[in-house]
Parts: sequence; structure tokens; C-alpha cells
Amino acid sequence: MLLDLIEKPNDIKKIPPEQLPELAKEIRAFLVEHLSRTGGHVASNLGAVELTMALHRVLDFPEDKLIWDVGHQSYTHKILTGRKDGFDSLRQLHGMSGFPNPKESDCDAFIAGHSSTSISLGLGFCKARDLLHESYRVVSVIGDGALTGGLSYEAINNASGMKSNYTIILNDNHMSISENVGGMSSHLARIRTSSYYTGLKNDVEVSLKKLPMGDRLVSGIRKTKSGIKQLFIPGMVFEEMGIMYLGPVDGHDSAALERVLRQALSIRGPVLVHVVTEKGKGYRPAERHPSRFHGSGPFDLAKGLPLSESPVTYTDIFSTVMRKLGDRNPRVVAVTAAMADGTGLKRFRNMFPDRFFDVGIAEGHAVTFSAAMAAGGMIPVFAVYSTFLQRAYDEILHDVCITGQHVVFAVDRAGLVGRDGVTHQGIFDLSYLSTIPNLMIMAPKNKWELSDMLKFAVDADGPVAIRYPRGEAVTRWKEKRQSIVAGKSEVLVEKEDSRVLLLAIGSMVKQAMDARELLERENISSDVVNARFMAPLDVEMIRRAASKYDTIVTLEDNVISGGFGEHVVAALEAAGYTGNTITVGVPDEFVHHGAVEELMEELGMDAASIAKKVRRVRNA
Amino acid sequence: MLLDLIEKPNDIKKIPPEQLPELAKEIRAFLVEHLSRTGGHVASNLGAVELTMALHRVLDFPEDKLIWDVGHQSYTHKILTGRKDGFDSLRQLHGMSGFPNPKESDCDAFIAGHSSTSISLGLGFCKARDLLHESYRVVSVIGDGALTGGLSYEAINNASGMKSNYTIILNDNHMSISENVGGMSSHLARIRTSSYYTGLKNDVEVSLKKLPMGDRLVSGIRKTKSGIKQLFIPGMVFEEMGIMYLGPVDGHDSAALERVLRQALSIRGPVLVHVVTEKGKGYRPAERHPSRFHGSGPFDLAKGLPLSESPVTYTDIFSTVMRKLGDRNPRVVAVTAAMADGTGLKRFRNMFPDRFFDVGIAEGHAVTFSAAMAAGGMIPVFAVYSTFLQRAYDEILHDVCITGQHVVFAVDRAGLVGRDGVTHQGIFDLSYLSTIPNLMIMAPKNKWELSDMLKFAVDADGPVAIRYPRGEAVTRWKEKRQSIVAGKSEVLVEKEDSRVLLLAIGSMVKQAMDARELLERENISSDVVNARFMAPLDVEMIRRAASKYDTIVTLEDNVISGGFGEHVVAALEAAGYTGNTITVGVPDEFVHHGAVEELMEELGMDAASIAKKVRRVRNA
Repeated sequence: MLLDLIEKPNDIKKIPPEQLPELAKEIRAFLVEHLSRTGGHVASNLGAVELTMALHRVLDFPEDKLIWDVGHQSYTHKILTGRKDGFDSLRQLHGMSGFPNPKESDCDAFIAGHSSTSISLGLGFCKARDLLHESYRVVSVIGDGALTGGLSYEAINNASGMKSNYTIILNDNHMSISENVGGMSSHLARIRTSSYYTGLKNDVEVSLKKLPMGDRLVSGIRKTKSGIKQLFIPGMVFEEMGIMYLGPVDGHDSAALERVLRQALSIRGPVLVHVVTEKGKGYRPAERHPSRFHGSGPFDLAKGLPLSESPVTYTDIFSTVMRKLGDRNPRVVAVTAAMADGTGLKRFRNMFPDRFFDVGIAEGHAVTFSAAMAAGGMIPVFAVYSTFLQRAYDEILHDVCITGQHVVFAVDRAGLVGRDGVTHQGIFDLSYLSTIPNLMIMAPKNKWELSDMLKFAVDADGPVAIRYPRGEAVTRWKEKRQSIVAGKSEVLVEKEDSRVLLLAIGSMVKQAMDARELLERENISSDVVNARFMAPLDVEMIRRAASKYDTIVTLEDNVISGGFGEHVVAALEAAGYTGNTITVGVPDEFVHHGAVEELMEELGMDAASIAKKVRRVRNA
Repeated sequence: MLLDLIEKPNDIKKIPPEQLPELAKEIRAFLVEHLSRTGGHVASNLGAVELTMALHRVLDFPEDKLIWDVGHQSYTHKILTGRKDGFDSLRQLHGMSGFPNPKESDCDAFIAGHSSTSISLGLGFCKARDLLHESYRVVSVIGDGALTGGLSYEAINNASGMKSNYTIILNDNHMSISENVGGMSSHLARIRTSSYYTGLKNDVEVSLKKLPMGDRLVSGIRKTKSGIKQLFIPGMVFEEMGIMYLGPVDGHDSAALERVLRQALSIRGPVLVHVVTEKGKGYRPAERHPSRFHGSGPFDLAKGLPLSESPVTYTDIFSTVMRKLGDRNPRVVAVTAAMADGTGLKRFRNMFPDRFFDVGIAEGHAVTFSAAMAAGGMIPVFAVYSTFLQRAYDEILHDVCITGQHVVFAVDRAGLVGRDGVTHQGIFDLSYLSTIPNLMIMAPKNKWELSDMLKFAVDADGPVAIRYPRGEAVTRWKEKRQSIVAGKSEVLVEKEDSRVLLLAIGSMVKQAMDARELLERENISSDVVNARFMAPLDVEMIRRAASKYDTIVTLEDNVISGGFGEHVVAALEAAGYTGNTITVGVPDEFVHHGAVEELMEELGMDAASIAKKVRRVRNA
């Protein structure tokens, strides 16, 4: 096995060039075999094997800075930097991360997770290097999907000022997670299909007339310009922005890649190398279903099918209800930032293609665009992961909430998300969203409540956010289905003699109910209230609670700082409450990867930990 | 006076075309005369007079949607839509806003304030219009400065999918607030200086060879490409992104403008009209100092000089200290998002041009770029207005704080900013920043403390934010200058028999000290503590306070929700405090424009209101 020769950084340089295709094959086999057991990001990693190998042939680690955008495509980089063994514990608690992490290896220049950061980071490293008179190379690898994010453009706009070496690799697999959208995507597609790439090498001679200005302006313009476009110059957008463009290059041709990378590294100033790759390359099921194999659980190696039946998730419920709402109300439109699959909007798209908008990895635009659609009379539902909505904090505040536009935010993957780890935890939304005036914020306890809340939100006025967790939808307490009233909580268990209240929001209702049972066994009687609303807070209920209970426990799967508990405590304080409070939530720190249940236990947020905390206070 | 004929929307259409230059002159005189008394945005409005007039000649109000980016250039639009009288109360409490506002006029399609939103908004209106089968026109007016913001690119990337009419006006004055930066700016400059604009109309015939691929790739590339660029096609970047480009057009030629606008409106699909304007046009002082006349206070009409001597501001202090720190430590670098003037970094730029980075209106990039500079060994100080830092919430969290990079955020214009109003209030930063783990947050009570905190921050480890208000720096309590210790507050007044604590952060220390005096007169003795740190909170001090006082008042110029007060109350609760708490801060609502002092009074945050609240609680 050639792979056995790869034990530490730079070992790949010892492999003779003619054996590189064989090594690529071995790496793919290694990845598919391991990922079929652990799950992980399959398609993007299979597509980047030769590219990563070529980068490791021409760069020196750990001196040079290689910056992966998003970072889920860095598995081959992990293999080539001595982390093969880590794949047994990939994405497990205390195991190897699925993303780059400098704490894991000094060959990881920076963390990644959210999209479109790599060019900003690359420029930062370049400037630091130049000012400190160091000489390492800086290379950013960005996908065409990440290039739809405004952050990457802000950086590209700044790259032109770079006078020293900097290389951007555009890893163009014509997909982000779903298929790509927009003008940049078409631009790249034209390059890929242009004669350069298809091999036609004949020179062309074209005569051009400048465009007539003035009165004849419009009449002739279309024809002339499309004529000019015939002599298409690849990468003109980048060239015009002051970045030298090289490519396109076949991303699975090791020799060509190495050659163009060496050339790029020798050029002063910013260079973009356009590399065309195929997502899922080398594993048929992933080639055919790159979207399904974006992030995958364990799968059957031979058949390429998931090993376990996937349970009904909150995303599934959202998907079903959206379809119904779209059917019922022609004003309902759906917006996604490159996550039609992940957010469950695919079915809505299929049924109502005119009312479905995938804007690319562009959360800020998604929100501001939705604000104007609302002002224009539509009811936009923007479905988005909690962690990515962070990108649009200002747009929510400025464009939606100042004028109170009726935009619905369907905030998926809220709370702990598990294996994607520190960059993806949805543990901040209750805090950052509740800083914004005019925004209603809800969280459902089970699948029926998500459905009710979504209908309520679409019928409501003004901005509304509903946050719900990743994974299996809770199907308990079907009978507890009081209708949703703005700012009103729901009593789930109430006994006259209870002196303990478990006041939970969203998915933490489950922990509250389980903790209540544990406490019951010890003869501690407790009531449970499902808060439903983070904002507006049910102040009336809190006032009543202040007079009945001597111990009030708030439960949320969000950081403590600025979260549900702190708001409740402030309201209790205002109500003159003098009893005990216990605030259960994510401590104010970043949370690494692991199964959600494991993390909940580790953070003291599971039912047993909660019961213990109550016991301790009651016995004090 | 032609201006007398303009009393309501569309009245401008009655003016004969040959009289338009005269009307433009009158509008300019009107603006300069009024703004010299009220202050306001001078230069950008003088530049957009003919453009706005032309838009009002071709559009119908209020049916058509005209969307101003940023919005401070909408004064002529206000004049032409019947709001001349409003200029007497421009930017005053309950007077006319300095920005578009649908509540003020149905001719204002949307609010504006933050940059780069207009294309997203334009697309939203277009989609809503098309889906509802309406027929109004949609026009966005965006400056070349706003075009450096990633949000505008995300929208441009989406515009190509637009099949129906949509017009983008690029109001190119080659400035944002300071001079523009980056690749896009150079691209536009090349267009402006190309033969199209200078009037050369000769046809050219150019023969082109396609670029050699493969081994000869690099050798010939530079020469060939610059050759190709000779036949420069204006607006190629936009054309390649799928948007038809028209222009450039002289933005002070009413006839040409009207003609090109009519043409643009007749085209299906997205069109960008490139209009070249001059900031400050028609008023010599503003033409010569567009930056000084961006936002101006009242000024002497004849001389173009400010009427009142400007006091020493916190920005001035920051400016001075930054220069010193830059001198002392070669690792200190300064970053601004198009605000070198406003943030006081101009002097740093002049002294250390290599270590100064203006990234354009690109707060997200500024932060991520700073994160990597920090990782590369520099100490970046990003100076930014509180309200604009909202754009970078995710980048602060994801790129700076997860890995604890030592980036210093100098958060200027924190708290109430006054006359710029609802879109510019810096009243959210304590809340949104404190949701982020690992981030130290400070606020100074006076000018010496800002200086001390800045030095402390540069010497610290990890991410640090210092927030300080707009306007005159407090110069009281020079003698109170205990050295800064992480997470430690400062006792300003302490008496043994005080049972009231005024616990204030930042600029609210002043209100606390003044309230203390008012209370003293009524024989209510109170202590004052300057919190200094929002995070980490001085929990030890809070614990001591819990046992000494029976009334604790928190004071902040930030929204209550998730703010300083709520965090203190939570800590008091944890410390078993059973006394009264009063949380003074901005109520959880958006705050309109007016003088800061007026707003403070209106919101119950001035010393008198605070004293009254304490009195009420003490007498209850």
C-alpha cells in the first residue's frame, strides 16, 4: 500500500509522480470505507483528492498556510498530515474533528466551518507575513459554492491590492451543497464549457466595433455585446477585479495540477487557479447523488444506501407543512441559502417552483430580499440553520425588524447539532435574536407544535422566528395541543402542591418532563410549563409562578448569556420573586463535537443532571 | 422660483426640459442654505440632484418603487415628493428623518441606513410584483461605495435570474465616505477614463489570439491579457454576471440621464446604468472637501466652515492613542471599513501607511481578515461604528472568538447616536457581543479611561471590544484612574451607610454621578461603581453588593434585552440578593432621531429620571 508510506506531513513528496494515480485510488478507498462506518462528508472529499495531493506536493507543512473554505473537504489533507488513525473516531466525542482545527494539527492554518471565509483569511495571513518579513506561502481553497457568499467578494475586492504572492484555488464542482445558482455560477459554467477546456486550441480573430452611445444605445447593444462575448476571455471577472486567472484545469489530473500550482506560486500578486472537479469522484453512488452524499451517516458500502432508517425529523415536518401552506396561500414563498435539501424545501420547490428561491450561500441577501418581498405583499419563509443565520444578524435587525416586515424565519438545527461540532452548534440564536425589538421567537416541544407554530407564524403580523432542533421530532404529548396564542406559554403538568416549576423552551420540554418523573420518584412534586415563546415572554405566567413556587428552573439548549433563563430571571426579579432559580443551558463557552446526548450529559443538561440540581437546591 | 411649482410628487414633470438646469440650481441653493443651518449630509445630496430629478421625470410616484442605498442621498427625493417644509426640522426630534422612511411618505419604498441593501430589496420587490401580477417599476440607486459590500454582490449574483424589468443605478462618485478601495473601484475607474466617457467614438478593430494553455501558460499570459484589456468592454464584470450594462453617463446632464433611464426601463431583465456624479457638486467647499461634507453639522454658508468649534471627542482620543500605540508596537495594525475619517484612523494611516487597511464597506471581511492577521502575529485594531459591526456578528463569533484570536474591536458611536436615527443607534452591541464566549467587553467612563483601556486591550490576549459613544469625551474624574484589571470594576463613590448602588457602564457613569448628587440633596446616600467590564462581569463585586445594598440600579445606554442590567440581575440572583433592582437602559424598541440629550430624557435615562426611579422605589 502506498498509503502506508504516508505517516507524516510532506511524506507524499517521496512518492514517484507516476504512482500518484494509484495513491489517489487508495485514498478514495480509505475514505469511502471509513466514512461508510462513521458517516461524514463524502462527496466533497472524494472530489478533492488529487487537488489536495498536488497541494501537498508543492507546499511545505507546517510552514505554509493552506486555508480550506468551509473545511469539510479537508479529509485528504488530514490523511496527508499524519491523521489517518483519526478516522476511526471521526466526528465522535473527543475524536477527530470533521473540519480543520489548528489545535488538532499545526498543518491546519485556521479553523473553518462557515462558508466564504478563506480569502479574507488568506489575505490576513499574507499581510502579516509581509509585515513580519516572513516567507511562507499562503493558499486558500474555495469552492464555487462558497464564492456565492458576499464575504468572499469583499475579500476578492481587496485582493487586488496584494503585491506579494497569494494563491486562490477555485475548486469548481459546480455545486455548493445543492446545485449552484446565480451569475457567478453561469460565468464559471461558460468558462468550463468554453473551447479552452474542451481542448479546441485554434486561434480566433475577431473584429469588434465599439458600442454606439447615445440614441442608438439600446437598439444595437444586445447584438453587439453577445458578439463580443464570443471572444470570451476566461476569468474576465477575476481579471477585471485585479486577480490573475489561470485555468480551467482538470482537477483529477495530478500532473497538470502540480504544474499549474507551481506556476501560480511563482507569480507575484494574487492569482486564482480555476480547478474543475467532480463531487463524489470515484465512488459511483456519490457521483450520482452528490447531494445525498454531502453529509452522510454510516452507509452500506456496496449499495451506497444509509444503514439505518432515518427517523422523522423536524425538518420533515417543516417540509410537509410548508407544502400545505404553499397550497393554501399563494402569497407564501420559500427562501433558502443553498440548503433546499437540508432545510426540507425540496418538495416546496418541486410543487411551487415560481415561489421558491435559492439565493446561494448568501444569508444576508436572503433576509433583505425577503424583507422587500414582504413589503411587496408576499409572505416569505426563510428556512435556515441557526448557526448560518448568524451571518444575517444585521439584516434581520435593520431590514426586517425596524419596519416590522412579516418574514418568517424557520430556524433549523437550533441547539446542539452534535457531530459537526464547534462551528455549527446552533446555541446562540435565542440570545442574538432576542436582542432585536419587534421579533417574535418561538420553539416547539414536539412535531405537532412545530406544525401549529408554522401556521400561526404565516398568519401572524410582523417578523417571526421558529427555532427547532436537528434530528428526530418528538412525538410525545400529542394530546397537549392548546392553540398557539402570541406570547402565551402552555401548562403541561400542574399540581396544587408543587413548589418546583420546570419552565422549558422547545426541545428542552422533553428533559423537563423526564426530570419531573425522576423527581416524582423522590417525592419532589414539580410542575412543567412549555414556554413556547422566547419573545414576547409570558410575563403574566411568570408573575403567577413567582407567587406559587419556591424553586424555578429554566431550561434551554442555548447559551446562558442573553438566553431564555436570563430573561426569565429578570422578569421574576421584576415580579418580586424571592425563591431559588436554576438556569439550565449551555455554559458560555464553545462546544465541541460529539453525539447530542453525550454533549447534553457533559454539559449537565440531561434529565438526570437537572433532577440532581433541583435535589441539591431543595436539600440545601 | 421653479421650486415653488414643486409641491407634490410628480410635479417635476410639468417643468419644461430646458428649465431643468435652473431647477437643479435652485435645489442646490435650497439644500446648501438649509443644511448650513440644520447640518446633514451635504456632499452626497449635491451630487445626486440631476439624477434624482431625472428619476422623478421617468417614474410615477408613489406607484413605482425607488430604493435608495444607504439613503442619506435622498434629500432631493424628499424635496420632489412634497417634503420641502420638512427641511426646517431635518434630523431634529420628531422632525423629518435624514433617511428614507415609508412612514414619512408613501414615495419612500423602504427604509435605508446601512449600506448595500438596495439590490436585495429591489429584487424582492420585483419578485413580489411579478408573482402578484402587478406592473410597477423598481429602481435601486446604489453608490460605488456600497458596491464594495458583500451584500450587494450576493444580490447581483442573484439578479441574473431576473426575467422582468429591473433597473440598478450605479451612482459612481468614486467615493464611499472616504476614497474607495479595491478591485471593483479600479474596474469602475477604468470605465470612467475609457474612451467611451471621454467622447472618443472611433471604431476599433482588434485581432486577438486566444491564450496559450499548458506549458506556455504563464509565460505569455500577462502580455496577452493586458493586450486584450485594451479593447476594454465597459461593465464587463456586470455583463459577465448576467446584468446588462449601460453607460457611463454624465450624472449632471439632465437630458442624457432622462434618455438613458427611459431606455433602461424599457429593457426586460436586469439593467445597470452607470452614472458618474461629482460629490458636493455646485458648492465649492463641498466639491473640494467631500469627506468633510459627508455628514456635517451647521456651517458658515460663505466660508464652508463649521459654525461651532468641535469639542474633543472619544474618536479624537482613540485617534491619538492609536498613533502612540502604532509607534510603540510595530505589530499593531489598524483596520477600517471605509471609515478612516469617522473612526479617527486618518492619522494612523498617515504615519503607518503599511499597517493601515481600509477594506471598503465590508465589515465582515474586516473581521475575518483581522482574525488571520492576528493568527499571523499582528495585533489588529478594527475601528468601527457599533451599528455597522452588527454586520459582522458571525465573523466575530466564528473567525475571531472560537479560536480566541487577539483582535481589538474599537466600537465607536456606541449607545444613542442622535440625529442619524433609527438605523444608526449603537444600542445593541453590549447585548449581541455578550452572547459570544471568549470576548472581553469594556466601556470607559471618560477620556483617560478610553486611553487606558485601549492600551490594556492591545497588551491583552484574545478578543477584546471597547465601546465608546459618539461626541464629546467626558473629562471629569481625572483623578479616578485605577489601573485596568481584567474583569474588575472601579469604585467611584463608597460610603459606609449607603444602601443604594448605582452600577453604571461606560458613558452612563456620568448619569450615575449626576443622579447621585440629585439623590444626595434628598438625603438618599448612594454609592457609584464604574463597571468597566461587561464581560467578564465583576462577579465578586456583585456578590459584595448583594450583601450591602437594598437597592441596586444598573445603568447602560444599550437595550435592556440581553444587556448589562440583565446580566447583573442574573449574577445578583445567583448571589442570593433579595433587594430591589432597577434596570436603566434603552427600552426594547427602535429609537428614532433627535439630540442624544432629548432622547435620553424621553427614554428615562437621564440623571433626573434615574433619581426619580430610585426615589419611587425607596418610598414604596
